[in-house]
Amino acid sequence: MADKLSFASDYLRGAHPAILQKLAETNMIKTSGYGTDPFSEAARQKIREACGCEGALVEFLVGGTQTNAVMIDAFLRSWQGVIAAETGHISTHEAGAIEAFGHKVLTLPQEAGKISAESLQQYLETFYEDENHAHMVAPGMVYISQPTEFGTLYSLRELQELRAVCLQYRIPLYLDGARLAYALGCPANDAGLSDIAACCDAFYIGGTKCGALFGEAVVVPDPTKVPALFTIIKQHGALLAKGRIAGLQFDALFTDGLYERLGKTAIAAADRLRSLLREKGYRFFYETPTNQIFIVVENGRLQELGAQAEYSYWQKYDDAHTVIRLATDWASAEEEIDALSAIL
Amino acid sequence: MADKLSFASDYLRGAHPAILQKLAETNMIKTSGYGTDPFSEAARQKIREACGCEGALVEFLVGGTQTNAVMIDAFLRSWQGVIAAETGHISTHEAGAIEAFGHKVLTLPQEAGKISAESLQQYLETFYEDENHAHMVAPGMVYISQPTEFGTLYSLRELQELRAVCLQYRIPLYLDGARLAYALGCPANDAGLSDIAACCDAFYIGGTKCGALFGEAVVVPDPTKVPALFTIIKQHGALLAKGRIAGLQFDALFTDGLYERLGKTAIAAADRLRSLLREKGYRFFYETPTNQIFIVVENGRLQELGAQAEYSYWQKYDDAHTVIRLATDWASAEEEIDALSAIL
Amino acid sequence: MADKLSFASDYLRGAHPAILQKLAETNMIKTSGYGTDPFSEAARQKIREACGCEGALVEFLVGGTQTNAVMIDAFLRSWQGVIAAETGHISTHEAGAIEAFGHKVLTLPQEAGKISAESLQQYLETFYEDENHAHMVAPGMVYISQPTEFGTLYSLRELQELRAVCLQYRIPLYLDGARLAYALGCPANDAGLSDIAACCDAFYIGGTKCGALFGEAVVVPDPTKVPALFTIIKQHGALLAKGRIAGLQFDALFTDGLYERLGKTAIAAADRLRSLLREKGYRFFYETPTNQIFIVVENGRLQELGAQAEYSYWQKYDDAHTVIRLATDWASAEEEIDALSAIL
Amino acid sequence: MADKLSFASDYLRGAHPAILQKLAETNMIKTSGYGTDPFSEAARQKIREACGCEGALVEFLVGGTQTNAVMIDAFLRSWQGVIAAETGHISTHEAGAIEAFGHKVLTLPQEAGKISAESLQQYLETFYEDENHAHMVAPGMVYISQPTEFGTLYSLRELQELRAVCLQYRIPLYLDGARLAYALGCPANDAGLSDIAACCDAFYIGGTKCGALFGEAVVVPDPTKVPALFTIIKQHGALLAKGRIAGLQFDALFTDGLYERLGKTAIAAADRLRSLLREKGYRFFYETPTNQIFIVVENGRLQELGAQAEYSYWQKYDDAHTVIRLATDWASAEEEIDALSAIL
Repeated sequence: MADKLSFASDYLRGAHPAILQKLAETNMIKTSGYGTDPFSEAARQKIREACGCEGALVEFLVGGTQTNAVMIDAFLRSWQGVIAAETGHISTHEAGAIEAFGHKVLTLPQEAGKISAESLQQYLETFYEDENHAHMVAPGMVYISQPTEFGTLYSLRELQELRAVCLQYRIPLYLDGARLAYALGCPANDAGLSDIAACCDAFYIGGTKCGALFGEAVVVPDPTKVPALFTIIKQHGALLAKGRIAGLQFDALFTDGLYERLGKTAIAAADRLRSLLREKGYRFFYETPTNQIFIVVENGRLQELGAQAEYSYWQKYDDAHTVIRLATDWASAEEEIDALSAIL
Repeated sequence: MADKLSFASDYLRGAHPAILQKLAETNMIKTSGYGTDPFSEAARQKIREACGCEGALVEFLVGGTQTNAVMIDAFLRSWQGVIAAETGHISTHEAGAIEAFGHKVLTLPQEAGKISAESLQQYLETFYEDENHAHMVAPGMVYISQPTEFGTLYSLRELQELRAVCLQYRIPLYLDGARLAYALGCPANDAGLSDIAACCDAFYIGGTKCGALFGEAVVVPDPTKVPALFTIIKQHGALLAKGRIAGLQFDALFTDGLYERLGKTAIAAADRLRSLLREKGYRFFYETPTNQIFIVVENGRLQELGAQAEYSYWQKYDDAHTVIRLATDWASAEEEIDALSAIL
Repeated sequence: MADKLSFASDYLRGAHPAILQKLAETNMIKTSGYGTDPFSEAARQKIREACGCEGALVEFLVGGTQTNAVMIDAFLRSWQGVIAAETGHISTHEAGAIEAFGHKVLTLPQEAGKISAESLQQYLETFYEDENHAHMVAPGMVYISQPTEFGTLYSLRELQELRAVCLQYRIPLYLDGARLAYALGCPANDAGLSDIAACCDAFYIGGTKCGALFGEAVVVPDPTKVPALFTIIKQHGALLAKGRIAGLQFDALFTDGLYERLGKTAIAAADRLRSLLREKGYRFFYETPTNQIFIVVENGRLQELGAQAEYSYWQKYDDAHTVIRLATDWASAEEEIDALSAIL
Repeated sequence: MADKLSFASDYLRGAHPAILQKLAETNMIKTSGYGTDPFSEAARQKIREACGCEGALVEFLVGGTQTNAVMIDAFLRSWQGVIAAETGHISTHEAGAIEAFGHKVLTLPQEAGKISAESLQQYLETFYEDENHAHMVAPGMVYISQPTEFGTLYSLRELQELRAVCLQYRIPLYLDGARLAYALGCPANDAGLSDIAACCDAFYIGGTKCGALFGEAVVVPDPTKVPALFTIIKQHGALLAKGRIAGLQFDALFTDGLYERLGKTAIAAADRLRSLLREKGYRFFYETPTNQIFIVVENGRLQELGAQAEYSYWQKYDDAHTVIRLATDWASAEEEIDALSAIL
């Protein structure tokens, strides 16, 4: 399993060593469960500080699909749905987790994986203009991801514009930050954690894909918006008995700016890889500034490549070509990039 | 947090050191996700061997409520409910996780936390005798826990009798083994893993409360009974991206009989504690052979006790007394028991 | 089908002739749909007047199970359940319609089919005293039926006492009036429509079992408590395109006190039947003042009876006896009672 | 309410007089409930004959949204979704009734309101080619409507082609016949009831929009495909206590070919209206052969029109024009068409 290069995704290794060390140091200490322990509390405080919102509710869940299902269920009433890009993770790759709790995903067209404030505004306007809208699923919140599923970024201005439309229609804005480290660590990004906290009613800071064993940290700047969240988490089967295991991972990630540094490592590696690919004349399927790179590869070459390195199948391009994804991660080393480059 | 004795539960520490070591050793190896990695596969194979069922499907989930919700949803059709003791975990302490997926919990009276084959048989007979049963939720499976929520055990004979009734009515039997190590490590127990595998259509081997950081291993001896389980797990938000983190914990637990040994450690400590309590004249609220001990304590004494050691509130006994639970765990040391005894 | 007496239930005939006449008179008039028509509006106004609450929201649904599912879903948040008697219709005979929308039915013991304010208070107190209550389904509303499934009645005082507990815990009280005409037309009843409207956050006035072809009229005295009810009704598949068909039936039923008169007819017949049964020495399984009568019959006699008249099986009494239910209805004539009496 | 012409929809009047007569004739007869009565049985038998499938299960439900929700829930397993045109009724105008029971609607592009066998085939192929499809909602059945929401028709050949793809992928084909009379009564239609029964795993024959007070008749040619349908209907709150009221309406509609004749009346009126509109130079937004006509009207003229006749708003065409829908029905008379024509 160690003999082959893999750029298939960013969740292929264990965790950053600081996390393992923290687990080992605290292992035999007894603490209370369900996130009421002091490690989780310390992590919460560090995250609140990083986000610049002292009163925020912070909860640690296990994975991204789970977190989306919990938070969307927490914000929506039974007759409401969630607006998302047609390529949003909740629209496509969560096996109906949102619908399982009774909510429709209302899709908008995307551009580079993003929805625009204009298209959101138009959707909402058209919805309320329709005389029959009471026969339809009411748009109850907006879901975006940062970076998007296509590795692209919302600018701060775009987030603020989406925010303005949400405020106008009084619906919450929720941001899926499964790969947030790779936005925060990216030079092209201008929306920091406190900007996100200012624009969103809730968001999560991804751990699983950003150097943790698992775990996502939900942040709700105004906790009054999600009453009974603890019980909702339990109802979704998402409450960790040993909540501390998630808490102390985020404690480590939010000590001395580790989370953002992990992002930077991945971006540096991705930038190097992009340069090499560009030199070799590869065509990029999307232009991305973050850790995911999408290239078009001729099918014959792909077989050769597959023999030496793992990648992620994205989609068919045409009969002779395929789009693949290469992802760097929080621990990508120069040598790995160079080894891949040699193969490519 | 380390200065006070705690017997509040069995999920208060981290994990057995062998698990941490395994995590550390494999940390930087890249593997594929979602449980398709070689560590998970190795763990599956060890569990199949321990259960004596080569063809079993084994999946690793995160927690008990989640596992129950997933498996009950996997077995039931939309119009069916699950039969459980009125004190079953799914009946009381899972925040409606079963109902959230549309299924009713059909409760039977319990004795010592258990349902009997007789009462099950009678329930099913009465149900089908009722001319209006098509207007009611159809009993679609049976849920039991071993040990029960009261720390008691089903004998092998009792399991076989339940099995016989289930076969007669063609409904699956499912066993929640959140604390299964404390049954397997208990001298009073006569139902081993292979007995359970022979009696049940599905069961889970608990990790969270038995020495893992988290994790429960679902075993389905005949996999054809739960089509699309992978997608159902994903739909429940229960699919770990880094499935290996759960898998390698069970690999450690099922190496050299560790899982059962952890159970024995807890039972030895509990037996010692039971003796000491009996000597001191404490009244036992339930008679239990496993790691949970329920005693009646006078309220004044309880306050003193609470100042020095943590316990778990169970219920009011009368105006002057309270029932509390004391639980030993996989790492309980003699000194802890003696220290608690000194306080009691 | 006309040759055999039937006392199996109160929904065995069509509708009161005034309803058929109204349908015929208005048949070819075109009106708008979904309850926005003038007939429905007229019926709403008459019901508001009968209930003494001018501002009430009144909606017409089709059947009782549907109405319960819609209204319980409208009041509860996703993590909440509904408290009901263990014998409540939603607890037993609605095929899991409440659970299908994700809500648990939390059962209380019953006496004569009723729950008491004392047991409700105790349940709620115990719930909130439990340190783990955030792991459990939160009680979000109370369901009662009037008359109950056992044909018994809540007194006005009992309703007011339940109301007081609900107010204390800030949870709504909902009343299922599937057979409300048979309460309103009963001399033993002291809770009129305006009393019910004063005590309950919502209730429904049953049509199906009280002389309509179908239909239940939901009344919500303070409409702000159920936002988006129209959409919720649609989501449940409960919105009639030709809403007028339900509306004009209630228009007829609430013209010149017809609804209460229909109740009186059934009660008079039931009283006569009760007297005759008492004279003949039958044992009553429940003491009921309304249109449902429960008697214990020796199994041999039951076969003879069944050959000549239809009844409703209730439950086994002992090996030699069965409990059956006899129900009169809004059109029961003296001759039918006498004919039944002759057989009995 | 009678003084204004209305072509807003086809559910604006009561029922065909034969239905009212049947209701009146049978009114005081007592029958058993829940569709077990002889009237429903007679209607079932007539429908089976009309469809040429003796063994079919036939159930009578109340409305279209309800019927779709029940049948889709009956066919799908929890992890599956239903494929539909993006303009299908279940995709847009059912307030999330499908999602409320946990199922995603998977949308395909439409042409004239229809999905093609080609696009279905391509969707399914692409789905199963995707290596990650187990992370997605599995396509579990196909939903179409006849006539479509745009008043267009599937030809028999198109139905057979869809059928072939469904057979290849072993997923059922379900047809929503809310306006089926207007297909059956249309000269352009070549798919009769027995063709539909041969192509579909289930379909419903619409009553509400085709001359009944309410009611839809579900037909399942092979009943083994939907076990426990009765209980599912109950669970959805869709079981009529007085099932006979629905049954005898269909008995009337399927006596002497009434159902098809009602369709012909509407089509004749629509054809006359289409001719008149064409003469006057109106632009048709869709080309439709059935009872729904979609025209583009200049906004100034629309106001005049609205003062004299009711129509249905469809959508904005451009800043100066609007698309409206005019619908004839089972009782449309020549004079109504001429009166409308005079206004237009």
